[in-house]
Amino acid sequence: MPDINSPIGLFDSGVGGLTVASAIRQALPGEQMIYFGDTAHLPYGDKSKDTIINYSLQITDFLLGKGCKLILIACNSASSNAYKEVRDFVGEKAMVLNVIDPVVEYVANETESHNVGVIGTKATINSETYPRGIQSRNPGIEVSSLATPLLVPMIEEGFIFDDISNAIVRSYLSRKELQGIDSLILGCTHYPIIKNQISRYFNFEVNVIDSAKIVAEKLRDVLTEKHLLRTDKHPGHEFFVSDHTEYFGIIASMFFGEKIKLDKISL
Amino acid sequence: MPDINSPIGLFDSGVGGLTVASAIRQALPGEQMIYFGDTAHLPYGDKSKDTIINYSLQITDFLLGKGCKLILIACNSASSNAYKEVRDFVGEKAMVLNVIDPVVEYVANETESHNVGVIGTKATINSETYPRGIQSRNPGIEVSSLATPLLVPMIEEGFIFDDISNAIVRSYLSRKELQGIDSLILGCTHYPIIKNQISRYFNFEVNVIDSAKIVAEKLRDVLTEKHLLRTDKHPGHEFFVSDHTEYFGIIASMFFGEKIKLDKISL
Repeated sequence: MPDINSPIGLFDSGVGGLTVASAIRQALPGEQMIYFGDTAHLPYGDKSKDTIINYSLQITDFLLGKGCKLILIACNSASSNAYKEVRDFVGEKAMVLNVIDPVVEYVANETESHNVGVIGTKATINSETYPRGIQSRNPGIEVSSLATPLLVPMIEEGFIFDDISNAIVRSYLSRKELQGIDSLILGCTHYPIIKNQISRYFNFEVNVIDSAKIVAEKLRDVLTEKHLLRTDKHPGHEFFVSDHTEYFGIIASMFFGEKIKLDKISL
Repeated sequence: MPDINSPIGLFDSGVGGLTVASAIRQALPGEQMIYFGDTAHLPYGDKSKDTIINYSLQITDFLLGKGCKLILIACNSASSNAYKEVRDFVGEKAMVLNVIDPVVEYVANETESHNVGVIGTKATINSETYPRGIQSRNPGIEVSSLATPLLVPMIEEGFIFDDISNAIVRSYLSRKELQGIDSLILGCTHYPIIKNQISRYFNFEVNVIDSAKIVAEKLRDVLTEKHLLRTDKHPGHEFFVSDHTEYFGIIASMFFGEKIKLDKISL
């Protein structure tokens, strides 16, 4: 059975979830992470619920095999489409967290927001996980959602902080769905890379919510409560991908904030 | 064994290969097509050679099971990374064509080009299939290649013929690799959708080569030579995808040029 020294397993459709891993490294420096990026199947954001569930369960099985004490679904598309199935699959073997519920709780309980926007992939937005979650906790909050699918490839191809990305960001954020919002949830682990660019579009007048830090804090609370928070030195993080190209290594380092080694493994 | 009334099987990582299917429908109206779009694994363009081979062989096996007389790899990333493996796998059971060799032959033998550019996905460009093929047939032609990975998601998300797509097209086509070209090969089955936009960028002074028509003509030649060209009425085309969302149906119709029904099948 996993114990306090067991690792945290987290996964994403690719390397975007490394923005969450980076926040965890900062907030919980004693924890060891085992990261799995499903680069052979990325992106999840355009795929169906069934397919996302299928991939998520295979990865969860791999992470359980590594003895993880907690599985964090570090991908919004998988969090919104496969959380229940992953939790059922894991049962009592480990804890399961996703990257959406902590943000939903934060927005519903801890902000002054009245009019919240959410942007994310098609899979995330179509699931309606954010509006349902927020409104069930706080019916006084208006939630408007918009799928912004070009942002992931735009960021991955390095179009950031330039004229092209400004035009794409402007095209999405000016749509009627997002008029009058006071907060904006970045519902995709890629988006923190352009958080400042998005804030700038709104003249810094909209509270742009980066979920990575909120999720890392939730993780600390959960582990502390279960007496599973590790503070001593760990043997180092491990990063696995299901497909490897040189390019994944380059952008992985951009997302994680430091150079990392990706090992390829087939599930 | 397949005979003249057997179908043509063709596949792509998604629905982009339907631009090729559309050209075949026009050039060879008697042929029945069985199309497979690997939407559960798309896109191939960012993935490794081994992964592309793996997916391609699974699909080829499915198409052989449908009794196809010819397998057309209607995807540049798969044509450039998995053609040999698909051919070896198929053996004598059917003919195998890819979408690159006909274009390479056309450029090397039938154009006046001296300075050819190629644009495509990372997987296609990194394989160097186009420059090697052209220069082995005609060493007098200079070939310059450029990966333009944002064009596929840009087209799929409907950013075409607008300011944003003009900015992206300009950003790619103005790069030094493409300076001084007299022809440009569209090395991806998505790109014909924006052929006019690309021609316009070059003030119509560059010969923009759309491979779909060239491939369809090659297919007719090959089938005619083997006495396998069908001219009578066929029972209708079949379109399969490995993952299904409403969105795939919408863009499939854009690529094929008429409304079609996609059936989901897991391999």
